Amino acid sequence: MGIRLAELVETLGGQLIGDGALEVTGIAPLADAGSSHLTFLSNPKFRGQAATTGAAALILSAADHAHIGEAYAGARIITQNPYAYFARVSQRFARMAARPPVAGIHSSACVDATARVAGSACIGPHVVIEAGAVIGEHCQIDAGSFIGRDATVGEGTHFHPRVSFLEHCHIGKNGIIHSGAVIGADGFGFANEGGVYIKIPQVGGVRIGDEVEIGANTTIDRGALADTLIDDGVKLDNQIQIGHNCHIGAHTAMAGCVGVAGSAKIGKYCTFGGAAMVLGHLTIVDKVHISSGSLVSRSILEPGQYTGFYPLAKNADWEKSAVIVRNLPAMREKIRALEKIQTPLKSEK
Amino acid sequence: MGIRLAELVETLGGQLIGDGALEVTGIAPLADAGSSHLTFLSNPKFRGQAATTGAAALILSAADHAHIGEAYAGARIITQNPYAYFARVSQRFARMAARPPVAGIHSSACVDATARVAGSACIGPHVVIEAGAVIGEHCQIDAGSFIGRDATVGEGTHFHPRVSFLEHCHIGKNGIIHSGAVIGADGFGFANEGGVYIKIPQVGGVRIGDEVEIGANTTIDRGALADTLIDDGVKLDNQIQIGHNCHIGAHTAMAGCVGVAGSAKIGKYCTFGGAAMVLGHLTIVDKVHISSGSLVSRSILEPGQYTGFYPLAKNADWEKSAVIVRNLPAMREKIRALEKIQTPLKSEK
Amino acid sequence: MGIRLAELVETLGGQLIGDGALEVTGIAPLADAGSSHLTFLSNPKFRGQAATTGAAALILSAADHAHIGEAYAGARIITQNPYAYFARVSQRFARMAARPPVAGIHSSACVDATARVAGSACIGPHVVIEAGAVIGEHCQIDAGSFIGRDATVGEGTHFHPRVSFLEHCHIGKNGIIHSGAVIGADGFGFANEGGVYIKIPQVGGVRIGDEVEIGANTTIDRGALADTLIDDGVKLDNQIQIGHNCHIGAHTAMAGCVGVAGSAKIGKYCTFGGAAMVLGHLTIVDKVHISSGSLVSRSILEPGQYTGFYPLAKNADWEKSAVIVRNLPAMREKIRALEKIQTPLKSEK
Repeated sequence: MGIRLAELVETLGGQLIGDGALEVTGIAPLADAGSSHLTFLSNPKFRGQAATTGAAALILSAADHAHIGEAYAGARIITQNPYAYFARVSQRFARMAARPPVAGIHSSACVDATARVAGSACIGPHVVIEAGAVIGEHCQIDAGSFIGRDATVGEGTHFHPRVSFLEHCHIGKNGIIHSGAVIGADGFGFANEGGVYIKIPQVGGVRIGDEVEIGANTTIDRGALADTLIDDGVKLDNQIQIGHNCHIGAHTAMAGCVGVAGSAKIGKYCTFGGAAMVLGHLTIVDKVHISSGSLVSRSILEPGQYTGFYPLAKNADWEKSAVIVRNLPAMREKIRALEKIQTPLKSEK
Repeated sequence: MGIRLAELVETLGGQLIGDGALEVTGIAPLADAGSSHLTFLSNPKFRGQAATTGAAALILSAADHAHIGEAYAGARIITQNPYAYFARVSQRFARMAARPPVAGIHSSACVDATARVAGSACIGPHVVIEAGAVIGEHCQIDAGSFIGRDATVGEGTHFHPRVSFLEHCHIGKNGIIHSGAVIGADGFGFANEGGVYIKIPQVGGVRIGDEVEIGANTTIDRGALADTLIDDGVKLDNQIQIGHNCHIGAHTAMAGCVGVAGSAKIGKYCTFGGAAMVLGHLTIVDKVHISSGSLVSRSILEPGQYTGFYPLAKNADWEKSAVIVRNLPAMREKIRALEKIQTPLKSEK
Repeated sequence: MGIRLAELVETLGGQLIGDGALEVTGIAPLADAGSSHLTFLSNPKFRGQAATTGAAALILSAADHAHIGEAYAGARIITQNPYAYFARVSQRFARMAARPPVAGIHSSACVDATARVAGSACIGPHVVIEAGAVIGEHCQIDAGSFIGRDATVGEGTHFHPRVSFLEHCHIGKNGIIHSGAVIGADGFGFANEGGVYIKIPQVGGVRIGDEVEIGANTTIDRGALADTLIDDGVKLDNQIQIGHNCHIGAHTAMAGCVGVAGSAKIGKYCTFGGAAMVLGHLTIVDKVHISSGSLVSRSILEPGQYTGFYPLAKNADWEKSAVIVRNLPAMREKIRALEKIQTPLKSEK
């Protein structure tokens, strides 16, 4: 049960050098690939490994193709972006291996009579779908997930087990939400009166675009009045927290444990390393990259890479440096004092 | 379906200037409010906007009222804390819009015969309530939530879908627990013997006061021997972790992703910015405010605002500064050396 | 319903000094222990308290035994590691107090006909067990948990309510997974093509050893191609995120909110303080200890304690120090300038 190389090139593009009738049964890294595998070279530093791989066929760039020359004897698919090509081939193999979900509503699911569930959707055990919700064609809603009143789930979107997708939230096409994620919990909004907090009802929703992936146990709060917005192609890893009224621009990606406080506006094509944090009401423009463990405390109006974490050291060394960090103002005073003495000395010279 | 201004002032207080028979249908920000809306001015810098708002009525302070004068033509409600007033009016509108939950136990819920569920409580689909648990009047326990053995839930408390509220945990009146929260998982307690961990059973519970709100996917561990304590009016945002045996004082608020290690004692009226961290066995007194992204590694015995995060910079600038941070002890030595040379120079003069 | 001291010593070891027929009904801290309690002294600084405790019996080391002498009149159990002994005695009492779970499958659970569930296992309400999954003897799978296709759960393992344990994941014997944990969500793997992310299917699993404990709402991602590996005796607290293809060595412990990015290899007997973060593709050798709030951005090849967090200060002091941290390169220049002036001065002398 393989795929012929010719078929791959027909559907995914690329230039084939070699026998189109050759069938490959899977894709594997350079080092592990066997004679029935396709493999790929996406980083020139592995050219040596590519030359000696046992794979039946190799996906690579034109530059690497020229460089490797005759050293590798198998078939080749030449493409501009071998890693993206690898991803697409992997998707092909994954689809072939997947058991197609069986359309229909499991007998233990509770679906309100006024909800509209497409005939091709697959609703798992113990799912709850409340009044007015709409589930599109080919959706897969796995066991124990909850879909609130008037929520809508676009065509082809997949909720893994135990997702909470609360009232008036919307997600577009071909989305993936992983297990334990909570979309549409109340934003953290209170007025303070004499030290006591008074809850401000959160009546906005969450509006998520197409092709969005949301990781396990990630939380995205509903807006206070307007919607929290997650645009097309956004990819969020696990345990991310997005506060109310945020707007995350298209094709921005965030690694695990990132936190974004309320009303932050984040541009397109940004990336956030793990555990990066963004304070509320900030603006971050397009193509900003925040390093892991860094806290964004002011708006960023210029694209680029930004960082702010304390460098790791042996504990004893850190203790010495941390004491001085605390006392930096005193150190600056000492330098200023030295400079004052110095200046007359210099002018004397 | 609006509210007359006179009715608002009767129930919520404030001084009405204008027509009490005027009916408003909702509350909106200054900029968005239309002629059937109430709006509010809580920050003097928006006085200009308030003067030109299209709202039917404006909530504001006496000072702002005097300042705006005739510029604004609509009705006014004068109150000391317009933001708190706004919150209360919002609650009124939210209650009017809400569908009242229908009392009763969903047929798919599993409620132990020895659990006591008040007649006015609303128990959703696939909820599990174990032996000896007590659910108070007007509670709402949403789909898929779990309430363990001998747990008690006070009157008017609302669990959103998929909450875990484990055995021997207690929450008071009018609480809100958001989706995915886990109350009463085991604290992280082990004895180490030759590198191997031996579990210490966690036999305390979690005891939560009245009017407490707990965010989505937040976790609060049960105590090792005694209870973990969350006092009245505490507000916890999403993805917060509270370790075993902590005590969080009344009306303390924590933003998303905060972590508090075991046995920390935190006072009343404190605030914690997002992703702040507190080490175990510390004491923090009342009215301490910890900035976002800051780690509390020692007890704080004086009220005030405390901060400790590395300032964000362009990555290249951070790299330069971080190298020096590592080498601060060497820099201090250089300054000391300069000072030693300086001292004779100074005395020569 | 107590335990005789003789019985404890027979099963758990230690040297008994006193009446073996004496029965104790529980274990309590030194200060709280009454005349039917056992207590323990694990830290010499509490010797004074031990001498005056009201407990019937005291677990202590030989050194403390010698030191306390006649001051304490009750029975004693002398052992090398009193804290570990305390843990084991606590486990005995906890087992005695526990209601034995009743074997069998709850009528509301959905268990696929091809899953194999041991006869002594206890499957709670609304549990879902999919095709091909295997649940070992004496397992306890609590309400609302999900066990995916072909997953295996070893003998004596306990899943608390609402765990997601996804397809092709494996856990060994005597494990504990707390509520809301998600094992086997997709790793965060994408190829980027012109700014748009293309998903790389994650077809590895998660393989967890024996005696592993995993905290509430912790997430462990499945591998991209090979498995994510969690070795025997690992203890993970709440809200930890482990990325795809990580390998966590045996008997390593991580406190709450730790994040480990993909493909990190972590050794045995390591500890991670709360909210520590590890970047991807790093190696950390055995017996490394990372302090709370510290980010590991490079491999650590030498055992020891490592730290890197910005020290907390009053906000006003932090602001002063943080400004200087940003400007450290300028400060270094000033020092260099001073040194240059100094050098001729010194040579003049």
